[in-house]
Amino acid sequence: MLDNDQLLHIQKEAFPEMERRYRTRLINALSGFKSLNLLGTVSTEGVTNLSVLSSVVHLGANPALMGFIMRPVSVTRDSYNNIMATGYFTFNHVLESFYQNAHQASARYPSEVSEFSATDLTAVYSDRIKAPYVRESKVRIGLAFREQLNIEANNTILMVGEVVEIFCPEECLQEDGYLDIEQAGTVTVSGLDSYHQTQRLARLSYAKPDQTLEVIS
Amino acid sequence: MLDNDQLLHIQKEAFPEMERRYRTRLINALSGFKSLNLLGTVSTEGVTNLSVLSSVVHLGANPALMGFIMRPVSVTRDSYNNIMATGYFTFNHVLESFYQNAHQASARYPSEVSEFSATDLTAVYSDRIKAPYVRESKVRIGLAFREQLNIEANNTILMVGEVVEIFCPEECLQEDGYLDIEQAGTVTVSGLDSYHQTQRLARLSYAKPDQTLEVIS
Repeated sequence: MLDNDQLLHIQKEAFPEMERRYRTRLINALSGFKSLNLLGTVSTEGVTNLSVLSSVVHLGANPALMGFIMRPVSVTRDSYNNIMATGYFTFNHVLESFYQNAHQASARYPSEVSEFSATDLTAVYSDRIKAPYVRESKVRIGLAFREQLNIEANNTILMVGEVVEIFCPEECLQEDGYLDIEQAGTVTVSGLDSYHQTQRLARLSYAKPDQTLEVIS
Repeated sequence: MLDNDQLLHIQKEAFPEMERRYRTRLINALSGFKSLNLLGTVSTEGVTNLSVLSSVVHLGANPALMGFIMRPVSVTRDSYNNIMATGYFTFNHVLESFYQNAHQASARYPSEVSEFSATDLTAVYSDRIKAPYVRESKVRIGLAFREQLNIEANNTILMVGEVVEIFCPEECLQEDGYLDIEQAGTVTVSGLDSYHQTQRLARLSYAKPDQTLEVIS
């Protein structure tokens, strides 16, 4: 049914009628373009693990907090157990140069298989974080686990971590603190499987009432 | 300090030393490219409100749940009060055609001023949702409030809503359920103020161990 603006109008009563994967694709695209990170963890036995995350979200700058959504009974369960055991995890931006490897990391490998070797990505470590970074990524964040919140509506979990350290290309860090992730090659994802590079429209000045916006060069 | 991969290494002990806005810009860029939505709400007195959100996140497809992060004592407080009073809110994708208007909506207008009129955007309503949609947006989602979770680490809130209805361009909905938000003109944001259009690299087939990925055309 089209509305006055000639848009398709889909109501929730239609959702149960949809084929399962059709519904999953549609609903996954609704939030907009999503961040794309590889979650790096390691088990107490030393088996490294990578999971693809499109739900990483900024929570606050002071303290520096970030979160992500986890489904406990899914491919991310190894990651969850590792975070609980070690207290640490890493986010690694997915770049255009290896986005297909990152997508492959979403396959359901057995627990004893490291997604690093399965997807031809390289684990590197810092002194501070008991979790592997992805060498191929140029924007890497090491976090310490802080808290988890259970979302009752569907039994997913918001995992919260505090940023302990950042690795990034020096030339991407601008004078005012903005990190140019487009220049770093970071990609974005929409829905379950659509990968996109970006092209900057503009940076805009801080908005105030009755003041015209300016483009930050 | 540069590490073995010639990356800048920033440790958390440096954060308190940074100028406040510098730190805010840096930390806000870490999550990657972010979704960009206008949050539409209305007060019981009928005053409409728009807030810019870069934290909308997919929570689940069945039931269809989405969330966003809210700071209670900020420009989004009017939105919070409206959602609590009405039980409803809308997400409206920001398109390239009006991203500057959307950025302007982040200015701190007094409660009695509607951001719609202040930013030259148009409120439209459906029969089901007690909250305004943005007519200029072509991907609009109406949600019913479900729950809120308090993040103790910094006193922000994860707001959870259930999708009640969707408006989208018919030509953007593909046969397999994927909604082509790039074709719809949806933009993405990085950091606090950098807006980006996108260019699709590929859609990739469902990943399985020991199976080669294919590009979905």
